[in-house]
Amino acid sequence: MSTFYLRDIENDICHLSENDSRHAVKVLRHKNNDFISVVNGKGLLAKAKIIEANPKKTKIKVLQTKKIKVPTILGLAFCPTKSNERNSFIIEKATEIGVTDFYPLIAQNSERRKWNSIKFEKILIATLKQSGNYWLPNIHKLEAFNDFIVRKELPKLKLLAHCKEGKKQDIKNLADATKNQIVVIGPEGDFTLEEINQSIINKFQTISLGDNRLRTETACITSLAIMKFL
Amino acid sequence: MSTFYLRDIENDICHLSENDSRHAVKVLRHKNNDFISVVNGKGLLAKAKIIEANPKKTKIKVLQTKKIKVPTILGLAFCPTKSNERNSFIIEKATEIGVTDFYPLIAQNSERRKWNSIKFEKILIATLKQSGNYWLPNIHKLEAFNDFIVRKELPKLKLLAHCKEGKKQDIKNLADATKNQIVVIGPEGDFTLEEINQSIINKFQTISLGDNRLRTETACITSLAIMKFL
Repeated sequence: MSTFYLRDIENDICHLSENDSRHAVKVLRHKNNDFISVVNGKGLLAKAKIIEANPKKTKIKVLQTKKIKVPTILGLAFCPTKSNERNSFIIEKATEIGVTDFYPLIAQNSERRKWNSIKFEKILIATLKQSGNYWLPNIHKLEAFNDFIVRKELPKLKLLAHCKEGKKQDIKNLADATKNQIVVIGPEGDFTLEEINQSIINKFQTISLGDNRLRTETACITSLAIMKFL
Repeated sequence: MSTFYLRDIENDICHLSENDSRHAVKVLRHKNNDFISVVNGKGLLAKAKIIEANPKKTKIKVLQTKKIKVPTILGLAFCPTKSNERNSFIIEKATEIGVTDFYPLIAQNSERRKWNSIKFEKILIATLKQSGNYWLPNIHKLEAFNDFIVRKELPKLKLLAHCKEGKKQDIKNLADATKNQIVVIGPEGDFTLEEINQSIINKFQTISLGDNRLRTETACITSLAIMKFL
């Protein structure tokens, strides 16, 4: 069954967005009386029937709804790369895997110090529909690394990956999909020793992602895959 | 130390490729007597000195070489997607993670039935230099799924991911970085039941990658990340 996104599924009768209406009618060739799924990105899944298959504004009737429970937190804090293509990639792949929270950060060696979340919202919604997730991840505001690491509301299981020398644990010995967890990935130029030490003081556990030098986006996806499936 | 790629490091005196010469001299601003690393993609790592920093043909003197042992096999068999951008992405990210063998396949629901490996060789070499791997992965010839699954020389630990119903194991219970292993990822339209059954007959173990529908490239990278780090 095709899945569509609708921020508000409060009423019995709703309308798909112009984008989804066009997709439903022009691409998927949906007709009146077809059944579809609708998600609101906040844990509500609805089964609905198309009342009026209109490529600009398709009218649907919600038949039943189901509340999906809040997922375990899987957070990704990362320093956005220079290339927005690679940032889009991080957002898309992490959302597919099931990330719940993005924290874009500015660290000392950050290459990008401006960030516009709105750009990435389309990717979130498209990926939500595609992947079958029921929850849209939160993209938090861009903030300084030093402000982020002292946040009180983060999960207890806080990992930070870096390539410098020092005591580091194997990610497989810490990652645990049953717990709320978050990982922090540094900029291309890595975190500074000062940043690493500050994170340890704030109870982050430092991890290694092996001997290969991974690009920022690869480090993000690799660590999330392990955290999600372990 | 900057790393360059040279297919043959047999002699004492060698020349960097035009591409690497330009990069060394114009971008990295290397001068005569600078030390560099050179890899041949077949497990040889050399320390060398620049004798003549020429942006077209830089002459180097190999000072010492070190043989790196053959890595444990980490194979990826996959049905290339329609989009070569996404195929490039698979090749790049898998190489960073440390894949040793790519097997492009044609399955019943394959969207792409032509494949040109040469296109991807530049990505392999660029990623080799960037990631610090010493071995270039092999890209095997495009072949039919049915021919691939009966190959005798594959590792014993053979995983196949699909989204259909059926008995499937959790990838974390099978993946083992200390063993030779390979994973097979299907096309967008998934493997057919017949293909899945044939793979089981040929001792592939079927796995699930969770409840979310992952795109082909995400399934490739996610499974490799787990197999590499578990």
